[in-house]
Amino acid sequence: MIIQMKKESTKKQFDKVVEFLKEKHLEIIDASSDEMRVFGVIGDTSSIDPTDLYAFEGVKEVTRVSTPFKKASRSFKKHDTIIKLKNGVEIGGDQFVMMAGPCSIESEEQLRTIAKGVKKAGAQLLRGGAYKPRTSPYAFQGLEVEGLKLLKKIGDEEGLLVVTEIPSADLIPLFEEYVDIIQVGARNMQNFHLLKALGKSNKPILLKRGLSATIEEWLMSAEYIMAGGNDQIILCERGIRTFEKYTRNTLDISAVLAVKELSHLPVIIDPSHAAGRWTMIEKLSLASLAVGAHGLIVEVHQDPEHAMSDGAQSLKIKKFATMMDELEKVAAVLGKTLR
Amino acid sequence: MIIQMKKESTKKQFDKVVEFLKEKHLEIIDASSDEMRVFGVIGDTSSIDPTDLYAFEGVKEVTRVSTPFKKASRSFKKHDTIIKLKNGVEIGGDQFVMMAGPCSIESEEQLRTIAKGVKKAGAQLLRGGAYKPRTSPYAFQGLEVEGLKLLKKIGDEEGLLVVTEIPSADLIPLFEEYVDIIQVGARNMQNFHLLKALGKSNKPILLKRGLSATIEEWLMSAEYIMAGGNDQIILCERGIRTFEKYTRNTLDISAVLAVKELSHLPVIIDPSHAAGRWTMIEKLSLASLAVGAHGLIVEVHQDPEHAMSDGAQSLKIKKFATMMDELEKVAAVLGKTLR
Amino acid sequence: MIIQMKKESTKKQFDKVVEFLKEKHLEIIDASSDEMRVFGVIGDTSSIDPTDLYAFEGVKEVTRVSTPFKKASRSFKKHDTIIKLKNGVEIGGDQFVMMAGPCSIESEEQLRTIAKGVKKAGAQLLRGGAYKPRTSPYAFQGLEVEGLKLLKKIGDEEGLLVVTEIPSADLIPLFEEYVDIIQVGARNMQNFHLLKALGKSNKPILLKRGLSATIEEWLMSAEYIMAGGNDQIILCERGIRTFEKYTRNTLDISAVLAVKELSHLPVIIDPSHAAGRWTMIEKLSLASLAVGAHGLIVEVHQDPEHAMSDGAQSLKIKKFATMMDELEKVAAVLGKTLR
Amino acid sequence: MIIQMKKESTKKQFDKVVEFLKEKHLEIIDASSDEMRVFGVIGDTSSIDPTDLYAFEGVKEVTRVSTPFKKASRSFKKHDTIIKLKNGVEIGGDQFVMMAGPCSIESEEQLRTIAKGVKKAGAQLLRGGAYKPRTSPYAFQGLEVEGLKLLKKIGDEEGLLVVTEIPSADLIPLFEEYVDIIQVGARNMQNFHLLKALGKSNKPILLKRGLSATIEEWLMSAEYIMAGGNDQIILCERGIRTFEKYTRNTLDISAVLAVKELSHLPVIIDPSHAAGRWTMIEKLSLASLAVGAHGLIVEVHQDPEHAMSDGAQSLKIKKFATMMDELEKVAAVLGKTLR
Repeated sequence: MIIQMKKESTKKQFDKVVEFLKEKHLEIIDASSDEMRVFGVIGDTSSIDPTDLYAFEGVKEVTRVSTPFKKASRSFKKHDTIIKLKNGVEIGGDQFVMMAGPCSIESEEQLRTIAKGVKKAGAQLLRGGAYKPRTSPYAFQGLEVEGLKLLKKIGDEEGLLVVTEIPSADLIPLFEEYVDIIQVGARNMQNFHLLKALGKSNKPILLKRGLSATIEEWLMSAEYIMAGGNDQIILCERGIRTFEKYTRNTLDISAVLAVKELSHLPVIIDPSHAAGRWTMIEKLSLASLAVGAHGLIVEVHQDPEHAMSDGAQSLKIKKFATMMDELEKVAAVLGKTLR
Repeated sequence: MIIQMKKESTKKQFDKVVEFLKEKHLEIIDASSDEMRVFGVIGDTSSIDPTDLYAFEGVKEVTRVSTPFKKASRSFKKHDTIIKLKNGVEIGGDQFVMMAGPCSIESEEQLRTIAKGVKKAGAQLLRGGAYKPRTSPYAFQGLEVEGLKLLKKIGDEEGLLVVTEIPSADLIPLFEEYVDIIQVGARNMQNFHLLKALGKSNKPILLKRGLSATIEEWLMSAEYIMAGGNDQIILCERGIRTFEKYTRNTLDISAVLAVKELSHLPVIIDPSHAAGRWTMIEKLSLASLAVGAHGLIVEVHQDPEHAMSDGAQSLKIKKFATMMDELEKVAAVLGKTLR
Repeated sequence: MIIQMKKESTKKQFDKVVEFLKEKHLEIIDASSDEMRVFGVIGDTSSIDPTDLYAFEGVKEVTRVSTPFKKASRSFKKHDTIIKLKNGVEIGGDQFVMMAGPCSIESEEQLRTIAKGVKKAGAQLLRGGAYKPRTSPYAFQGLEVEGLKLLKKIGDEEGLLVVTEIPSADLIPLFEEYVDIIQVGARNMQNFHLLKALGKSNKPILLKRGLSATIEEWLMSAEYIMAGGNDQIILCERGIRTFEKYTRNTLDISAVLAVKELSHLPVIIDPSHAAGRWTMIEKLSLASLAVGAHGLIVEVHQDPEHAMSDGAQSLKIKKFATMMDELEKVAAVLGKTLR
Repeated sequence: MIIQMKKESTKKQFDKVVEFLKEKHLEIIDASSDEMRVFGVIGDTSSIDPTDLYAFEGVKEVTRVSTPFKKASRSFKKHDTIIKLKNGVEIGGDQFVMMAGPCSIESEEQLRTIAKGVKKAGAQLLRGGAYKPRTSPYAFQGLEVEGLKLLKKIGDEEGLLVVTEIPSADLIPLFEEYVDIIQVGARNMQNFHLLKALGKSNKPILLKRGLSATIEEWLMSAEYIMAGGNDQIILCERGIRTFEKYTRNTLDISAVLAVKELSHLPVIIDPSHAAGRWTMIEKLSLASLAVGAHGLIVEVHQDPEHAMSDGAQSLKIKKFATMMDELEKVAAVLGKTLR
């Protein structure tokens, strides 16, 4: 941490900050000159919020030297984290992992049809919403626990692992019983109560990026889970809110590269929520593969027009299969395996 | 709801959308011409997410006629909602209500000192964080239940009602025991699980606007609570995320006017989190009063430099008192009462 | 400037950066420790773009010590700049200056009617667009030079100074002939070619903030003009682009306070473009006065429904007059003069 | 255009809007019901700014039926526009066109070295800044006309066409003499004065997207040029401003797909300005190819550490060559030609 004092700051103000930091067992290296009063802070500063230091009179600028996240950082762990699932699928290595399925689980028949379709096309995991976070209280809220049971049943039948979103910490035991990967939705990325509780789970966590979250905030949310002891985290970029309204969100494809520079955790892309338009999914999926993501989570529906949610961004099963063929061609020249 | 079809759309595509809507007992008014195929939808469309209709081939644009929120809307209830607290304070009328106190409750002594100070200056409510949502898992997380107890104790002593933030639904009974107004933090504005649970509470809810939430999304979150039966909601604008970094957030002062046009619910301002700099609080508070907000929630600390959080944006007690005097002058000419 | 090297950076990389800076006659203060390699740079760094230093291998973070703007900064000039206009009006002091008039100049009669109205209500300056920057090439583009002539004519008749927007540098001589304050529109805030040319003008410049500009970028644009020799600049906050769509833009009222902390230049507010809704103008104007702005620029029209542009955000003449009365009441208690 | 009136609007208000539109020779189709008063407007509405209609009392919502851009729209011209350059290169078809070179032209030797390098690697066009839009007036502003002459000279020597940014309309004749494609920078995307003037030029225009521009605004800027008669426009996505600070801007890769749906104009990507970090260029270039862009414009420098601008985002010549090899592999399986 580097702290720079204002030009007009006094020696007394300087001493006050230094004293405060020394009380926290941090070491000070003074680098002041005639032109500026500035000093470095050495030691574990992770418990200090830099913004709090601005409360001291005379402080002008506080700059972090190290990232605020530790366990999630590349400097903490040099090698890529690879998450090994029970069916042998590995997320974080050379495999481009495909998770596919409906936005909402609507019925056993619907889920089975889609599961068969995506399995045949080569997907490794089945996604499907049981608890749906809807902006309107009057919209369909999901089949809830019945959805979880269907997901497990169909997953087992078809040989697919399953992933679905959790709405709150008290449901963790239920989710641990029925699902293989627990998803934290974008709106819950900073639900710290939930993140802390998931730190105690032994299930891998799929952590979506918040609608307007920076990459640093996203990795801090991963840190919350890791601080609790669970280091099986898959980051998922799903588009951020921008001024552009033609697409539902703006896919931040560079975030994949940023995450790989800053962290050792695997990172996948959700092109469906990013674009909000099924016409864009195939091309965005190809771009995701080309940029180096570790996989995709894609919405697929047998009859998008009658989907209970997100029909506009869902691929038909047949379209998903042809997309897989396109992906295979590019994966081959990039040295990635797809199915 | 008005639905416009693409130029190249077919009669069959048109019929399919119409059939879907009629199944939901909605009425259709066709307003098509040679140049465009467009129709209105009459009836209760609140359970339909307009974006889902884009799944139908041929649909170009879906426009809502009515707001997606109902109970929170001005057209549902013409007169302003006034929330009457047990000490006679009314939020939503001509009183400019002051809630003040530390960001975090740190100790009994700290809280008592601040409570005495803000009470003397004329505040009606004491704020203070017991469960702190911190971006770092290594930062101070609050005194938790001990904080709640202190808050009630000191509030009772000083004759101040109390307000504090709730982190998750399972703590509602505890909060109902100790606090007068339950606050939903910005990061939880779309924690629908929490909102639904609060709909069953009989305590007034202070609902902060999310960091990047639109006013419509904010009112939809109020609708979630109201749909559950609790219509005692105070909206709180606390700054939104923009590209400007000199201030912590950007105070959207126009949001007060927008809320008053769109809704009957009271709306207050939190200048501390908006600015993130104590030097700006007084002037922003004056502007909040001038624009027509129903009150303020302000961070005050007896020793900001040693605050465990948010010291940089906390007013000293003496400064809070002089600010109250300034507010009083302007309140007088605007026909508002302050204390 | 403080430069921090990456942990894994080499001595050779460090030396290369140092050598580069020394060639520019800058002094280096090494503050490295075992834990981090970091150094300060002393001297005039204004010609160095910090982002360019990231081209050096090993550089992790470059932090500015001083603001990138010099002449515009408060540290360059302690006292507030006050711009004295030829009719005795002063912008930047205790007077709350009112500029009012139509979005577009449409005809002599229209302009005279409005000018008479705003003059009577107490405005000091007449605004009116002659060259209109419209997003559509098919929309009304303004009366151009005829508009300038009308503006001067009516201004002279009514005893009002005039302000209007310039579209490009080659029109500066024409504007110098006809107008008292030359306005740079939001879309031209970073038209550096225009800014440089205005630096050679002897007319005061009203510099609007760009739609998504930070305050630092805005002050850098002022610096461009000042670097050319013209230090008569009035900054104008007119709302920034955010996700909120109920208002046309989001008025960043805190920007007034930020500008006053960072710079000595006067700053006014344009509530019309910020809100885009005439219903909000009065309250936002009161808030602008309360927050400490040096004045307003407001759109007023005799018949907003038939305005050739921006009718939705224009006040009727009568409404403008009653607003002036409200402003007067608040100005009185704040020690400001209005008319 | 569909106009919806407020619930409480009167027949008289309705009639007033209708009368206004009929005066503009537009036809009205009334689709009102008991529940809502709504009507469609048929005819050429391009000269009407929808926001102006909100000035009419009683108007609630105005929705466009057609895009505000006409000549730039896909519905105006079904087939892709292909821009044929004099060396046979076609932009807009199956060729993935590469434009490469330094951010700033610094010297003849520098430009020749880079030109030879990118030519050898397979680029078709040489880029290089002669007039540099810098945020600081104290930073290097470019070689100006000398830069243009060098660009033409080296381009001719190496058999590369040249592209560079124009700062203002008065320089068009000079640019027409020296360059093959005239670039409009992001900050000038809404410099309507410049756009109008370029509409009269016979040179192809490379139109960069503004920092916070929507795709609709970007296409409206293309419309400005096309309205003047010049339909040789290449759109260039170069990253938009978001809250993410790890990258300089956020590459909106979906914009390529959006442009291809909405318009017939070709669209390329500038990964250098989007990322601001050379480490990301190769992967983003691969993603750009995969998503379907028509080419790239990339910054390449022989010695990025001593570049006079943008060194951090410039590829070394050798790195550019290996990137071309990677692109070739993917281009081959996607049916695109690269060199």
